[in-house]
Amino acid sequence: MMGLMMHRPLLVSEILDYAAEVHPLASVVSRTVEGDLHRTDYPTLRKRAVQLSFALEKLGIRMGDRVATLAWNGFRHLELYYGISGIGAVCHTINPRLSAEQLIYIAGHAQDRLIFADLTFVPALEKLKDHLPSDLRYVIMTDRAHMPENSLDALCYEELLEGQDDDRQWPEFPEDTAASLCYTSGTTGEPKGALYTHRSNVLHSLQAGVSGFVVDMGEDARILPVVPLFHVNAWGLPYLAPMIGADLVFPGSALDGDSLYDLIESEGVTSAWGVPTIWQGLQDAIDKRGGKPPSLRQIVVGGSAAPRAMIERFEKMGIRVNHAWGMTEMSPIGSHGFLPWQIADAPFEERMARKAMQGRRAYGVDFKIVDDSGKRQPHDGKSKGELYVRGNNVVSGYFDNEAATEKAMDAEGWFGTGDVASIRPDGYLQLHDRAKDLIKSGGEWISSIDLENIAAAHTKVASAAVIAVSHPKWDERPLLVVVARDSDDLPTLEELRDLIGESMASWQLPDDLVFVEAMPLTATGKISKLTLRESLSDYVHPELRGEGNG
Amino acid sequence: MMGLMMHRPLLVSEILDYAAEVHPLASVVSRTVEGDLHRTDYPTLRKRAVQLSFALEKLGIRMGDRVATLAWNGFRHLELYYGISGIGAVCHTINPRLSAEQLIYIAGHAQDRLIFADLTFVPALEKLKDHLPSDLRYVIMTDRAHMPENSLDALCYEELLEGQDDDRQWPEFPEDTAASLCYTSGTTGEPKGALYTHRSNVLHSLQAGVSGFVVDMGEDARILPVVPLFHVNAWGLPYLAPMIGADLVFPGSALDGDSLYDLIESEGVTSAWGVPTIWQGLQDAIDKRGGKPPSLRQIVVGGSAAPRAMIERFEKMGIRVNHAWGMTEMSPIGSHGFLPWQIADAPFEERMARKAMQGRRAYGVDFKIVDDSGKRQPHDGKSKGELYVRGNNVVSGYFDNEAATEKAMDAEGWFGTGDVASIRPDGYLQLHDRAKDLIKSGGEWISSIDLENIAAAHTKVASAAVIAVSHPKWDERPLLVVVARDSDDLPTLEELRDLIGESMASWQLPDDLVFVEAMPLTATGKISKLTLRESLSDYVHPELRGEGNG
Ligand SMILES: Nc1ncnc2c1ncn2[C@@H]1O[C@H](COP(=O)(O)OP(=O)(O)OP(=O)(O)O)[C@@H](O)[C@H]1O
Ligand SMILES: Nc1ncnc2c1ncn2[C@@H]1O[C@H](COP(=O)(O)OP(=O)(O)OP(=O)(O)O)[C@@H](O)[C@H]1O
Ligand SMILES: [Mg+2]
Ligand SMILES: [Mg+2]
Repeated sequence: MMGLMMHRPLLVSEILDYAAEVHPLASVVSRTVEGDLHRTDYPTLRKRAVQLSFALEKLGIRMGDRVATLAWNGFRHLELYYGISGIGAVCHTINPRLSAEQLIYIAGHAQDRLIFADLTFVPALEKLKDHLPSDLRYVIMTDRAHMPENSLDALCYEELLEGQDDDRQWPEFPEDTAASLCYTSGTTGEPKGALYTHRSNVLHSLQAGVSGFVVDMGEDARILPVVPLFHVNAWGLPYLAPMIGADLVFPGSALDGDSLYDLIESEGVTSAWGVPTIWQGLQDAIDKRGGKPPSLRQIVVGGSAAPRAMIERFEKMGIRVNHAWGMTEMSPIGSHGFLPWQIADAPFEERMARKAMQGRRAYGVDFKIVDDSGKRQPHDGKSKGELYVRGNNVVSGYFDNEAATEKAMDAEGWFGTGDVASIRPDGYLQLHDRAKDLIKSGGEWISSIDLENIAAAHTKVASAAVIAVSHPKWDERPLLVVVARDSDDLPTLEELRDLIGESMASWQLPDDLVFVEAMPLTATGKISKLTLRESLSDYVHPELRGEGNG
Repeated sequence: MMGLMMHRPLLVSEILDYAAEVHPLASVVSRTVEGDLHRTDYPTLRKRAVQLSFALEKLGIRMGDRVATLAWNGFRHLELYYGISGIGAVCHTINPRLSAEQLIYIAGHAQDRLIFADLTFVPALEKLKDHLPSDLRYVIMTDRAHMPENSLDALCYEELLEGQDDDRQWPEFPEDTAASLCYTSGTTGEPKGALYTHRSNVLHSLQAGVSGFVVDMGEDARILPVVPLFHVNAWGLPYLAPMIGADLVFPGSALDGDSLYDLIESEGVTSAWGVPTIWQGLQDAIDKRGGKPPSLRQIVVGGSAAPRAMIERFEKMGIRVNHAWGMTEMSPIGSHGFLPWQIADAPFEERMARKAMQGRRAYGVDFKIVDDSGKRQPHDGKSKGELYVRGNNVVSGYFDNEAATEKAMDAEGWFGTGDVASIRPDGYLQLHDRAKDLIKSGGEWISSIDLENIAAAHTKVASAAVIAVSHPKWDERPLLVVVARDSDDLPTLEELRDLIGESMASWQLPDDLVFVEAMPLTATGKISKLTLRESLSDYVHPELRGEGNG
């Protein structure tokens, strides 16, 4: 029997309407690429998103059309989120850190009709122009005064908005309508498109609301999304923040530790979201200045494993760290590391050990782990297997890519994450590695994440990565790659093996150590193991060096 | 264009699965009618709900069948919520405070197949039995040892569960499937059924999660639902609490101020939810004992207007009050009175004035106010009109009641609340009265709520109600009905008119004052103006008494 309740579509536009009406006092601050600090609020933002939506319609944009953005975190990018999706078009955020090739591939694959770009990216677009779809039109996200000379025949964002009506009832359409499009970052292969729906974006935020994120940020949240609006909806913050009436502080393009420190301090940021490499930079800035920015009380970290040493440093400064796991294909939140309050008084060591795990699943997300034959493994904290996920915020396939879709989905309709994990009886998820980064030594697996985590805790190590190198007897052996804190005081292999040996078996310890100046990063700021493997492709295992190489 | 995300049905069973897996440390405490204090947790509760679901199937219950409950707040009632809805049957909670007539009407109208009753209600059921559907079966919610002699041929709850499997994958079905059924409380007329869906129940909780309720309770919430599980899903707490991993403390049948005080104190309750009459009782207990229960930090009050005086008393004790508005037809939350944090430092008077309003709309709920001709009124804080609502948690009609449905829904598909309201530009809702309780004096409306609110603030007044009495010249005039704090120290009409006159116009002041021993209450614990009007039907306005009556 069907019930008798209204069935209203879950639409993204409802979020902005709600914020404008119910949270008029919240503020949105942006460090712009033009150089100033811009301040606005949700009522104003709604008016401008409405103006933008009319301008898009006048440019011929219709439901389902893809409209691309190539931009930093700022208020105009947020307006695009709502102006584009609000009329049923698809907001396609492009990651500007992708290679030229990938960018051309993506814009062509998505068949973008319009692209909105920050000033920063005009030169790059001019170079790529001939390889991009010939009917693509360009809009530069600035005002007339800042419009640069350009060969793009580009429109000016502020001029587009001028004179348009600033109020409308947003159109209504089914909640499964596509709202936004984001390609994976290409860490492990060619970018693949995740095509989010209005339903998935709205539910993703609602789910975050009951999964610890909202309660941990507190009612007076002032959020710094260092996570980019150009990748996986900045972890959902463009939807969650207006829903709960949180302030947003957008950092623009200045993402180094010092710039972030200054912005957090001057704007009173309470909660900051980003990948571990970003927080490395912030920790250095904090060390330099002798203390944390007073207002900062919470950090959400994810995208790759946050080393326990990093979590501990922040927690000791009085900054709560929430270690979250997710994927482009999951909108992206899959789990969170908030401690159950019942164990808030557990010893520091125990709490930190937990915080280094990937935590408990978010509401609405189902987990299963399966072995190579596809058999489900128990959630006993020991059995490992590939993690499969299911939920309204999970892709059912990739945009226009049947081959990739086929590979990712299993017979029961679950999505394979490519991550190897175990799940404890109390619901805690622990990622051991990406399947592709696991090291297979003598038929046994070694987790690169575990090794990195411990190595990163050494005082002489700034950051650590472990990759597999080939070995005639063991197939693969782990190689430790390190960026030293001080190039005049390098850690020795012996020191690091001793440290790792305290908690791992001797056959799992790395046989060798290589120093690099800086870690190569992916387009989303993660350590790029692909690049590391490439640049170390000539590396030869010590045991083999006698044979003519050493 | 449709997006490419999984479409999983939003089902109530998912909530309990989630709590059992992710929140195993949370506890559920119940003061039982058998007399003891019972303790359990979500994993155990899930096992028992699963056992119950198998037992129901063996009793022939199928999707869509209505299964009724007649019970206080306790763990078995919560198991019924999930066991019944989990298999697609409809959990029909019956309000035991309804009259025998209404109860018979409801059980017949709903065509209940089974009824689960607490020990308390066995005698009543025995009396009603011959008037209830002849094929209705009875289950008494207790164990074998406590089973009473009875003429109902009743089954025993614990025996039903015994030996059933305690794990299952819940069946999947469309999210618009009926999950639960609740009849209005009959304050204004014959009970009408609201037939909630899985989607509406799940979304209602998710919406509460981003609308201030979760953040205000804090992560270590230990919730006392004084609001009954037998009316409007206890304001959604049976779904919200497991979702967020909050503890639940169920008070059973002991709802007087002293019993609540003791339970709050001994169980460390942090958040308590209920109607104003309940909190009146608690305030008296607090006065008697000279202080609040230490753990209690928040009260959610709604169901009828919470007098400002009551809110102020609690706030001065250090208990935050959230004044929420809602309806049976809204699952029920429509608005909440959490202050925007940006005005947390406003003067006490200003904050309390705001807290006495009904607050801002919850996410997912739309408001409009219209005048008698159906024309929309501006949200300017001045224009009044009937409040209409729309949202996934709002009924699209009444269960098997076309006449009532037709009356309630407007041409645009909105639901008419019967409440007269205004909305301020900052989104604040202010209820002036139920349309039926407004007093029409000389063509102008007087709000009974406003008068009651002020009268209730007088130190000599325990509670106050205002009803309309007829008047030949003015049509209607307000009559003030008062329960005095001390029957030896009654407030005078003059004193009360003086107080009310400070903020209301002289023509709005009540012309007369009547004392009663206690207010008549409705089945949900609200002051019953219907009963007051009936019992005062012989009342004659002072100006007319000379004419042969006085
Ligand atoms: N908290 C975390 N701990 C460990 N690994 C994480 C965490 N969060 C994310 N990851 C890793 O990041 C992956 C998801 O990242 P994302 O979707 O941004 O792109 P990518 O997988 O890095 O790139 P691509 O899919 O293009 O190869 C996860 O599958 C997981 O391997
Ligand atoms: N915070 C509040 N302030 C003022 N009035 C409230 C508040 N909360 C609820 N109400 C009143 O209660 C009504 C909803 O109550 P409920 O659905 O429990 O049944 P009822 O309306 O009292 O009974 P019935 O519909 O059977 O007459 C609202 O329409 C409103 O008039
Ligand atoms: Mg990936
Ligand atoms: Mg009503």
